Amino acid sequence: MFEVKSVKETFGIIYDNFKYNDPGSERVSILDALGRLLDEDLVSDSDIPAFNRSSVDGYAVKAKDTFGASESMPCQLNIVGEVKMGEKPGFAIKSDTAAYIPTGGELPEGADSVVMVEYTEDFGDGDIFINKPAAPGNGLVYRGDDVRQGSVVLKKGQKLRSQDIGMMAALGYVEVLVRKKLRLGIISTGDEVIPIGSAPKGAQVRDINSYAVYASALRMGLEPALFGIVKDGFDEIQDTVRDAMEKCDIVVISGGSSMGTKDVTVKVIDSLGEPGVLVHGIAVKPGKPTILGKVGTKAVIGLPGHPASAYVIFNVFVRRLVEVMEGRSGSLEESVRAEMDTNYPSNQGREEYLSVTLYEKDGKAYASPVFGKSGMISTLTTSHGYIHISRGSEGVSRGQMVDVMVF
Amino acid sequence: MFEVKSVKETFGIIYDNFKYNDPGSERVSILDALGRLLDEDLVSDSDIPAFNRSSVDGYAVKAKDTFGASESMPCQLNIVGEVKMGEKPGFAIKSDTAAYIPTGGELPEGADSVVMVEYTEDFGDGDIFINKPAAPGNGLVYRGDDVRQGSVVLKKGQKLRSQDIGMMAALGYVEVLVRKKLRLGIISTGDEVIPIGSAPKGAQVRDINSYAVYASALRMGLEPALFGIVKDGFDEIQDTVRDAMEKCDIVVISGGSSMGTKDVTVKVIDSLGEPGVLVHGIAVKPGKPTILGKVGTKAVIGLPGHPASAYVIFNVFVRRLVEVMEGRSGSLEESVRAEMDTNYPSNQGREEYLSVTLYEKDGKAYASPVFGKSGMISTLTTSHGYIHISRGSEGVSRGQMVDVMVF
Repeated sequence: MFEVKSVKETFGIIYDNFKYNDPGSERVSILDALGRLLDEDLVSDSDIPAFNRSSVDGYAVKAKDTFGASESMPCQLNIVGEVKMGEKPGFAIKSDTAAYIPTGGELPEGADSVVMVEYTEDFGDGDIFINKPAAPGNGLVYRGDDVRQGSVVLKKGQKLRSQDIGMMAALGYVEVLVRKKLRLGIISTGDEVIPIGSAPKGAQVRDINSYAVYASALRMGLEPALFGIVKDGFDEIQDTVRDAMEKCDIVVISGGSSMGTKDVTVKVIDSLGEPGVLVHGIAVKPGKPTILGKVGTKAVIGLPGHPASAYVIFNVFVRRLVEVMEGRSGSLEESVRAEMDTNYPSNQGREEYLSVTLYEKDGKAYASPVFGKSGMISTLTTSHGYIHISRGSEGVSRGQMVDVMVF
Repeated sequence: MFEVKSVKETFGIIYDNFKYNDPGSERVSILDALGRLLDEDLVSDSDIPAFNRSSVDGYAVKAKDTFGASESMPCQLNIVGEVKMGEKPGFAIKSDTAAYIPTGGELPEGADSVVMVEYTEDFGDGDIFINKPAAPGNGLVYRGDDVRQGSVVLKKGQKLRSQDIGMMAALGYVEVLVRKKLRLGIISTGDEVIPIGSAPKGAQVRDINSYAVYASALRMGLEPALFGIVKDGFDEIQDTVRDAMEKCDIVVISGGSSMGTKDVTVKVIDSLGEPGVLVHGIAVKPGKPTILGKVGTKAVIGLPGHPASAYVIFNVFVRRLVEVMEGRSGSLEESVRAEMDTNYPSNQGREEYLSVTLYEKDGKAYASPVFGKSGMISTLTTSHGYIHISRGSEGVSRGQMVDVMVF
């Protein structure tokens, strides 16, 4: 018999039993690399900037020529040229001379500072008057100060954000090597479950979980695949789980919250290989009837049958499992900070993920508990996210600030 | 001459000058609908549940038969059947009888409550002993209590989240009507800018902004298109902006932070139609040289040339513009709450978006300012997000809690 595990124990079991498995890699255009996991170190082939570069519109000078300059006593320098964007200046700055330089222009030889145009005055007589002293290095970035040639700028394994795509462009990468996405197989079970395009007769219900899980998996950067609806028999479920396990890294079995179905799911997982079922039941609301198993290196999850419970469990536990299997450490999660508008007493002794609605009033964010009977699906769309109520806590009070994890 | 606008004034100008324009719609599979804007009201064609449904594993009973039941004095009911999943029960519950019912099963006629199996004892003699009283409605969801036939469950204009995809499945929608994505045209300007696949010679630099903006636009749910690199001349820029405006809803011109280039961008926007340039310069750090224009119903944005500035401005202002043009009201934004690990004094008089790095130590989240000279690109990848420092504030102090908007 399995003992119900706490949330913390379940996370521990995930960390102890799963690890990064190389899913193989593929080469993609950087335009398609957003959200993918980089599978190579990206090294800069050159210094950035590749030249001493002005970061302002102004005048390239020798800083020492400007020492002591002020509005009442500007220093006067002879303009010897104008730097053109993208071109190497054909002249040098000697003492008491200056040259106009635009933002991004290459600093002429001899200059060691750029004075912003705001601190200069040009009377059109070929000289420029400077009314603020500049220090060497002002208004410019030295060659290689931004990125040094040979340095690793983006690391193997990191998840690519939009700014990283910009950095890859700067380094001259048109394509990069990324890891293949983890494949998630989705199986729906239950004699009462029918395809969504069909009209339910009698006590039949449409297959909700497959689609909510499919979309959640897309959001997590996985490659989901639907394996259809399977009748509630051991052989049928075993055949489909075996097929899904061959093609996928993670298999999710949804539907079937009745005890009989759960028992079949447990038997199927145990029948397919070692170590089999690791967790059968989590002390959490909602989601007690959750199953976590492992066969070889693959993960098999039995989700609760109630769609709203399945959804929360998938987003809390499978998300963590995916991070582990992708070799990423837990990233800091984003949330919306809001004030509870209602008291919510919680069952002590087990943790709870409470679904809440978010709304704004007078520029402040509020969270409101979503009430609904177990098994309702309308709570799925009325809720914007969930808050975590820890074990032993008495709940949350009106006026308390909470961090809402948005679905 | 244009006056520099405050951040608040700029948002006001966005709200006053732009509005929702119907981009047309298309029909997509619900598997492809995540993140899209729904373009029809979705109505339930039936009651959900379509029958009185058990939400637990247990026994269907008449509640009044259980009144007074306790562990020491259980009530004894005769088992008259077992409800099968997905099937209409072929029997009714009369006084002093009960039937086994699994989670999701249809309540037999005559029953008005389901007692969880945990509160029953079955000695195998054809009777079931119930040791806890049940109230009518316990353990079940009545027909239509979840979703009423004819009710609007998902509204036209809402952005579809993964749980909404589940709800569409419940309603039997295989495909739905969504709005076409807003198209964002990206133009890079600057004589010094070269394609990313080329090796920079002399003072040339690779085109970073196009790619960082492209990826940010994907993340915002837009359909981005690259219009390439254009030389710094009025005619060349005008031709390309006109072309991009014909094909796109929003045009972003990046690169060129020198004053000359900015002036050309302003002239081009004004030359293409009314009302032309609305904002030329925002009192914000970074991003002062930002241009916001409107031609007909289209938006044209001139981003700062520095990649890190362009990135922040795009994510702050263009994000807001997109919300307005998509007809969405400002959604509550997610952030990571973290403690500042360093004092950061700020310039009073203008707002600042300070880039920060996030890290975790002893289970706590910390934010650290990313320092770097203006124009550096390495700050793009070292920063995880930004915090907003309001005008007139003196900055942020070490130990202060801040909300980090993750890029």
